[in-house]
Amino acid sequence: MADIRTSALKSPVDVAEYLFTRLHQIGVRSVHGVPGDFNLVALDYIPQTGLKWVGNCNELNAGYAADGYARVKGMSAIVTTFGVGELSVVNAIAGAFSEHVPVVHIVGTPSTISQKDGMLLHHTLGNGNFNVFADMNREISCAMARLNSPDDAASLIDYNLQQCWIQSRPVYVTLPTDIVQKKIEGERLKTPIDLHFPTNDQAREDYCVDVVLKYLHAAKNPIILVDACAIRHRVLDEVHDLISVTGLPVFVTPMGKGAVNETHPNYGGVYAGEGSQPEVKDRVEASDLILTIGAIKSDFNTAGFSYKTSQLNTIDFHSTHITVRYSEYPGLHMRGVLRKVINQIDKKQLSAIPGPKMSNKVKENEDNSETITQAWFWPRVGQFLKENDIVITETGTANFGIWETKFPKGVTAISQVLWGSIGYSVGACQGACLAARDASTDRRTILFVGDGSFQLTAQELSTMIRLGLNPIIFVICNEGYTIERFIHGMDEVYNDIQPWHFKDLVNVFGAKEGESRTYQIKTKEQANQLLEQSEFNSANVLQFVELYMPKKDAPRALVLTADASAKNNARQ
Amino acid sequence: MADIRTSALKSPVDVAEYLFTRLHQIGVRSVHGVPGDFNLVALDYIPQTGLKWVGNCNELNAGYAADGYARVKGMSAIVTTFGVGELSVVNAIAGAFSEHVPVVHIVGTPSTISQKDGMLLHHTLGNGNFNVFADMNREISCAMARLNSPDDAASLIDYNLQQCWIQSRPVYVTLPTDIVQKKIEGERLKTPIDLHFPTNDQAREDYCVDVVLKYLHAAKNPIILVDACAIRHRVLDEVHDLISVTGLPVFVTPMGKGAVNETHPNYGGVYAGEGSQPEVKDRVEASDLILTIGAIKSDFNTAGFSYKTSQLNTIDFHSTHITVRYSEYPGLHMRGVLRKVINQIDKKQLSAIPGPKMSNKVKENEDNSETITQAWFWPRVGQFLKENDIVITETGTANFGIWETKFPKGVTAISQVLWGSIGYSVGACQGACLAARDASTDRRTILFVGDGSFQLTAQELSTMIRLGLNPIIFVICNEGYTIERFIHGMDEVYNDIQPWHFKDLVNVFGAKEGESRTYQIKTKEQANQLLEQSEFNSANVLQFVELYMPKKDAPRALVLTADASAKNNARQ
Repeated sequence: MADIRTSALKSPVDVAEYLFTRLHQIGVRSVHGVPGDFNLVALDYIPQTGLKWVGNCNELNAGYAADGYARVKGMSAIVTTFGVGELSVVNAIAGAFSEHVPVVHIVGTPSTISQKDGMLLHHTLGNGNFNVFADMNREISCAMARLNSPDDAASLIDYNLQQCWIQSRPVYVTLPTDIVQKKIEGERLKTPIDLHFPTNDQAREDYCVDVVLKYLHAAKNPIILVDACAIRHRVLDEVHDLISVTGLPVFVTPMGKGAVNETHPNYGGVYAGEGSQPEVKDRVEASDLILTIGAIKSDFNTAGFSYKTSQLNTIDFHSTHITVRYSEYPGLHMRGVLRKVINQIDKKQLSAIPGPKMSNKVKENEDNSETITQAWFWPRVGQFLKENDIVITETGTANFGIWETKFPKGVTAISQVLWGSIGYSVGACQGACLAARDASTDRRTILFVGDGSFQLTAQELSTMIRLGLNPIIFVICNEGYTIERFIHGMDEVYNDIQPWHFKDLVNVFGAKEGESRTYQIKTKEQANQLLEQSEFNSANVLQFVELYMPKKDAPRALVLTADASAKNNARQ
Repeated sequence: MADIRTSALKSPVDVAEYLFTRLHQIGVRSVHGVPGDFNLVALDYIPQTGLKWVGNCNELNAGYAADGYARVKGMSAIVTTFGVGELSVVNAIAGAFSEHVPVVHIVGTPSTISQKDGMLLHHTLGNGNFNVFADMNREISCAMARLNSPDDAASLIDYNLQQCWIQSRPVYVTLPTDIVQKKIEGERLKTPIDLHFPTNDQAREDYCVDVVLKYLHAAKNPIILVDACAIRHRVLDEVHDLISVTGLPVFVTPMGKGAVNETHPNYGGVYAGEGSQPEVKDRVEASDLILTIGAIKSDFNTAGFSYKTSQLNTIDFHSTHITVRYSEYPGLHMRGVLRKVINQIDKKQLSAIPGPKMSNKVKENEDNSETITQAWFWPRVGQFLKENDIVITETGTANFGIWETKFPKGVTAISQVLWGSIGYSVGACQGACLAARDASTDRRTILFVGDGSFQLTAQELSTMIRLGLNPIIFVICNEGYTIERFIHGMDEVYNDIQPWHFKDLVNVFGAKEGESRTYQIKTKEQANQLLEQSEFNSANVLQFVELYMPKKDAPRALVLTADASAKNNARQ
């Protein structure tokens, strides 16, 4: 039977081809996920559209990897199968929503016919309800596209990918088996999806800029504090220009690590209330005007809500509004406002008083023992890092320790300070390392993960080996969930883990001779030797380091934050 | 300040103590899960109430383990933490809902005060909405209890545990950090929760029984077909009595494996439409009255909807209704109806014509090669199994191969034919093996899992080692997702996996000298030797077998079902 609809198309393409071509246009090169019978036919289109299939060990790991990939490459995609696959990744998608990361989640579903008939298929709840899983994604996606017809498939795909990019949050796309190969108009592909950020209403923007400038010009010792959403909502050009034009001291929050050049003379360190270095805390809290850019003032990002700053001395720049002291300016994106502030600022009226200088305090944390302590290690990492490294830290000691690490220029920091799902970093490491390779950049990817967290997602090491990636992986061997110990149950068995021979996993997971190196490091001297070794620094093969630290040792900031958490949990 | 409410209590107990005591009363002895800061204080009550904490490697695995535990021990509990923990397990909970397994999911949440204040805490979406994750659980839980006040905590707990047991499906319980230690009346604990199944309306039940008996007495060659819900809704006593009183031939569906004594003279084999042995198919489809008990006629349970039976010749017994031909009798539980049918049947009027006899067809499947084929292996397993073994099969070749395995008496079969989440079986094996130990029974737990599936949840092997469990684990090494190959993409790379040295994981995960044995089996002769070895059969340590089978070999029933699935997926 001749298909009248198809014959009317100028350049017919299959729905799956359209979708993957769009992803390629936006910059995605590798697609994460796990095969399942409702997505198999769709997977055939991946090589055809110039993409590569990753094939993760499980869906949650794939979701973490997609998150890491998006943080380096700008956007990512993951394909799962109906029910079992998509539900396994829901934690990673919620994490990407929470942390503002653009991940396109494509779910292969049963055919529209099977759904209409309410067939009793595998991967269903057995009750004929095919909407339950999509409904679960509603509050953790910034847009959704259920591709149940070729008629609106292209426009739904374009809208969802646009929103994913602009809102920098996950979108959820269902692709039924009978829609995958339906023909739609391919001419649309000649016009790229519009990814420009909408401009602000100019009158509203100008008004707000005037208010900001008024306070900025009047301030005696203003500073800039850069946070996560400056990275996620892509205003780092504006941030860098603001720093260089104003000459103001700049600080970052823990989630803002990597947003600014930490070797810039104006860089002063990490501000997180009580968790800050004393000179940072003093300078920030003495400021009469803090320009916070993209703030997420969560408990773990503020050392347990320990800021001693006043809203009266604060201007908050967000992607959806600006807040000047207590005045709200809704409907404004910080990008336009920041650009006009940069352009219109009167440097003569500006009081730029230099702030503290941060350094990697290794010597200050020597304790005349051979034991590798958290206090000693993190500044030491700062001396090891190189320009443009990608540094991934796991929720736990690593996420708090890295506050004490001064980065070289161009470092990308990846962590989950708000969502805080342990195990995240191992998947994220695979995704980030692959993204760097896909971008044809020669960046090192370096992971710091605790032994407890590593156990959740350990098999993603296998995917890194399979893909021939060459990250440097430090597993901090300290006998369990140290962050939990400091919150509650220091010596309780529920904070212990099974001891593994961690580095032997490299071999078990099939690394070939010469394609990996493993190390066991138990003393400061061994750590120094390794970190200075040129072979280790070159990172041309996967390297896996067992790094031993004491069970009850934790970074200063973690101890503070854990204590605040425990108190908040117990509050009556 | 004196607490007036508490001083009025006769035997004050803390909410967490109440909850765990109730679980102990119902028969739970081990609690699965992963610690997180919002559940730590609650975990302190586990040893106090006579329970043991498992401490899984991750939450999804913990959920699978809880599912396996419940299938052996009657009910199970898992503790996760808000957001990150509970979302990681949502696939396992949906699976338990789909497959009718009673799992109590307890989520440690932020304090009620933090929730009311909409605090920007870690493990949240950052938007102050603390209800999103509970809402996701609504359609996959048969009841929910959000314990936000001590006033109704006890009654909510009792109601939820009761519904979990009676409906045989998951319940969702949130326990905020500030409620854990609130005092409630402990006197209630002296009266056990009422777990009796509600009796049917007698007039309605009698009417239905008369109709059933009328057709049963009139039938010329009736048979009994037992399915999953007979096991899950606890009517196996009725099933066994029905078989022995009537003398009718009895068959099981794939999901009904383990429901009846397969060495009983009336046992005829597995019926799954075209997927059945020819003599089974002929006998069942020639029957003029099929008594189906607890049917779930899903695609994978029926070899792709290939039943050639007529509803005109069928009486369906369910936990919520009975269907006699096309007449529906809602509001009736099969238990009461079956009991009356057993009591009132007139054996003189019954036509019990013997059915086929099933055997383990090993010789018939010899092929004069040393290669271990699926066709040869599964009947061979039947000769290896012993009375009361627990047999766990993964979705894939194992789930279809086991159709050809005749069980000894008392075998419990665990699989996920409806939900079909790959990786399930590894967690389920941990849970089932622990449940058998907790029940002080001397049962062997034997797992059959494919290499692709094993990779999803491999680290739960570590938990088995940590707990000192001694399952026998067969990893079928056949280079990837064989079930997917037969649905689509026989030679596509997306169905390949990274080759692992699987058995070496036992050592990496910390098994101590003498506490485990590993094997690599590549020929029929090696398989025979191993399966006959008395040391291997005794299973007093954990045993791990790499079992090599060809990549493109699959059980007959899988090939049929995969083909039907592919056709259904492509239907336009």
